[in-house]
Amino acid sequence: MGMKVAKFGGSSVADGIQLAKIREIIYADPDIRYVVVSAPGKRFSEDSKITDLLYSCKMHIEHHLPYEQLYQVVCDRFSAVAFNLGVDAGLREEFDSILTAMKSGASEDFVASRGEYLNAKLIAAYLGWDFVDAAGAILFDAKGRFLEKETNEALSAALAGHEHAVIPGFYGTKPDGSIKTFSRGGSDITGSIVASAVGADIYENWTDVSGFLMADPRIVRNPREISAVTYAELRELSYMGASVLHEDAMFPVHKVGIPTVIRNTNNPTHPGTLISLHLPVEPTVPTISGIAGRKGFSVVAVEKAMMNSELGFGRKVLQVFEEAGVSFEHMPSGIDSISVVVSGEALEPHREEIVRRIADLTQPDVLSIHDHMAIIATVGRGMVSNCGTAARLFSAMSRAGINVRMIDQGSSELSIIVGVDDADFERTIEAIYNEFVG
Amino acid sequence: MGMKVAKFGGSSVADGIQLAKIREIIYADPDIRYVVVSAPGKRFSEDSKITDLLYSCKMHIEHHLPYEQLYQVVCDRFSAVAFNLGVDAGLREEFDSILTAMKSGASEDFVASRGEYLNAKLIAAYLGWDFVDAAGAILFDAKGRFLEKETNEALSAALAGHEHAVIPGFYGTKPDGSIKTFSRGGSDITGSIVASAVGADIYENWTDVSGFLMADPRIVRNPREISAVTYAELRELSYMGASVLHEDAMFPVHKVGIPTVIRNTNNPTHPGTLISLHLPVEPTVPTISGIAGRKGFSVVAVEKAMMNSELGFGRKVLQVFEEAGVSFEHMPSGIDSISVVVSGEALEPHREEIVRRIADLTQPDVLSIHDHMAIIATVGRGMVSNCGTAARLFSAMSRAGINVRMIDQGSSELSIIVGVDDADFERTIEAIYNEFVG
Repeated sequence: MGMKVAKFGGSSVADGIQLAKIREIIYADPDIRYVVVSAPGKRFSEDSKITDLLYSCKMHIEHHLPYEQLYQVVCDRFSAVAFNLGVDAGLREEFDSILTAMKSGASEDFVASRGEYLNAKLIAAYLGWDFVDAAGAILFDAKGRFLEKETNEALSAALAGHEHAVIPGFYGTKPDGSIKTFSRGGSDITGSIVASAVGADIYENWTDVSGFLMADPRIVRNPREISAVTYAELRELSYMGASVLHEDAMFPVHKVGIPTVIRNTNNPTHPGTLISLHLPVEPTVPTISGIAGRKGFSVVAVEKAMMNSELGFGRKVLQVFEEAGVSFEHMPSGIDSISVVVSGEALEPHREEIVRRIADLTQPDVLSIHDHMAIIATVGRGMVSNCGTAARLFSAMSRAGINVRMIDQGSSELSIIVGVDDADFERTIEAIYNEFVG
Repeated sequence: MGMKVAKFGGSSVADGIQLAKIREIIYADPDIRYVVVSAPGKRFSEDSKITDLLYSCKMHIEHHLPYEQLYQVVCDRFSAVAFNLGVDAGLREEFDSILTAMKSGASEDFVASRGEYLNAKLIAAYLGWDFVDAAGAILFDAKGRFLEKETNEALSAALAGHEHAVIPGFYGTKPDGSIKTFSRGGSDITGSIVASAVGADIYENWTDVSGFLMADPRIVRNPREISAVTYAELRELSYMGASVLHEDAMFPVHKVGIPTVIRNTNNPTHPGTLISLHLPVEPTVPTISGIAGRKGFSVVAVEKAMMNSELGFGRKVLQVFEEAGVSFEHMPSGIDSISVVVSGEALEPHREEIVRRIADLTQPDVLSIHDHMAIIATVGRGMVSNCGTAARLFSAMSRAGINVRMIDQGSSELSIIVGVDDADFERTIEAIYNEFVG
């Protein structure tokens, strides 16, 4: 069917029971050639993640506090798993050499990365696969910036001789050979990079959920999983606050068009969420992928008679925000009015300065700020080409008695964006979800 | 009830029958203290307007063509009306002195203004009121720019001694005493200036229609008249292409908050359209004032992943249009997309330059231009605060099978703006009209 790279997250590799599950998944699918793993996550809600324990060890060492017991906890967790599964991964020597490195002042990144390193060693032995280290294969420059092209080459070369391999996530190396980690959750990035470097047909991201949800479960009761979504749609949902993969984690596969599938280690028959570059648009009904939003926006409204005939009016207004370092989210406009929608928090320290500068530059008739607006994006395919979408959306809001404070829909087929009072935020998401999905 | 200034347009003062009507209107309302008049307009559809005949006289003189017969037609029309109404306004001497002035090279503005001058003389005599010339009272600077403050003073002084007066519309004088006219239709401006200068309570603008229509009668069959509208709403309708008073004509009264009433000389019992600064907002239903729109817009769509995190992105895009001298109308945006809506005609000569500059400045992922979009504004009060408005509007469009290409609604309570294919323009206006009015 094509080559797959599978990444298994922290909870999927937290203990022996989980590793048995992932071995079953991997053995059942001959297409899975390369596996990227996180450090062991929590086994139960009060448990510690291995990476947190390692950070803590490093901190103890720096403050000259006893850390041996803490480190022993880390080693014991790996040893217990290895013992349970009957695997000899040569971890004892690894434990010793890591301890030696820590004593001689290893960097924080080195210490933090050992959870993935040890876990990949262990899992490789358990699967009977080769271990290929990310050190020397995932490359950063001296300033710690990821080197995409060089990594692609080094990774391809490192994996070339291996029919199957397990690669630790989360880290790589700088030119001097020192370890450099991605931001937390960076194993997702590693998985995506490996998939891109080997030209995988599919990148499977195995987690503890059966895909992404169409709405926040704290707002909508038991929201459905998204079955298929494009990278662009997911980016919109993510930007609007949905709990999905961070853009950085998808960029390497997104860029080369490799589809990602989010799957559940604990429910491997569930198809999960498919993320791809393009998806078909239904000719007759819009496909809603999800609904997400954020609260706390402010609207800076500038009114001036005949502003349309004043060349540069909008540009001047936006320039004021740019000079204050405040990004604008939307700029809906009437004939004689422009509203600039910005994060209330970002606006706060620059409020007076922005009002003064706009007044100076544009001499408006009215200049007002309205706080506490929530923005909600309804994201999907065929939103614009299906003529009833806006009608259904606004009818649903109307039936729920919600005032529309702002509407923004441009040429993008991806979303309709509405502004409502912060107080109406949850009710709006519920109303839209129930109309299109529920 | 308060002092009124009444302006009577060309068709209201075209002949003796019309003058009899306006005298009845004026005599019936003791509040009307000052009357501003246009030159006589057409009496029937193939007729000539006096002002056109006068322009033609001037052109004949300049090209050394015989013009005496043409001028005689002008004089005869005034003489016939005076004879019909049994009025002696001393027009014969006026005719002679205008002829003398024309022969000795009077300016085009002087010649063009004589229709209003003669008509105001005639009507003053017919009403038994004083004639007060606009020359010396409506003032322009040497470059022909209207002097607001000086005019207010001169006009107040000129009218101070007159309980009632008739003032010719359309013209005033420059500092050297030469005649300067407003643009065509400028009698509306004069009326508005007089109302402002004397501090009228109401400015009545008498025409041949019973107020402004809620939609273009070529699109909607027998549209209703707008009964009440604010200056700001009317400005939006006017900007969007509705046939209403030009902004310039309303500015003097709009500025000082004097209400204008558009009334029909041929149907004086009809209340017409009231235009005022503020109007009450119904708490439960939106009040739609009118629906207007224009075709032929183009949408320049710029897509770039993570543009929101790029400070200055929107400003840069707008700057490109500004540098090309192309005004933008709207800028709806998604998360990773900005659409700039501009007049297709204005874009055409700068198309390549704008595309190249945006590409250079912002390095977009996708840059595309979509032509042939119509923009339709539904203008009214309480559009935003009544939650069902958007729902009704989009449901009506949906039932008519019309795709919404763009939606823009900012903090302005005044309008919801939608973009549709040019081909759907008329159907959209019909659908919205039928939903809210029809």
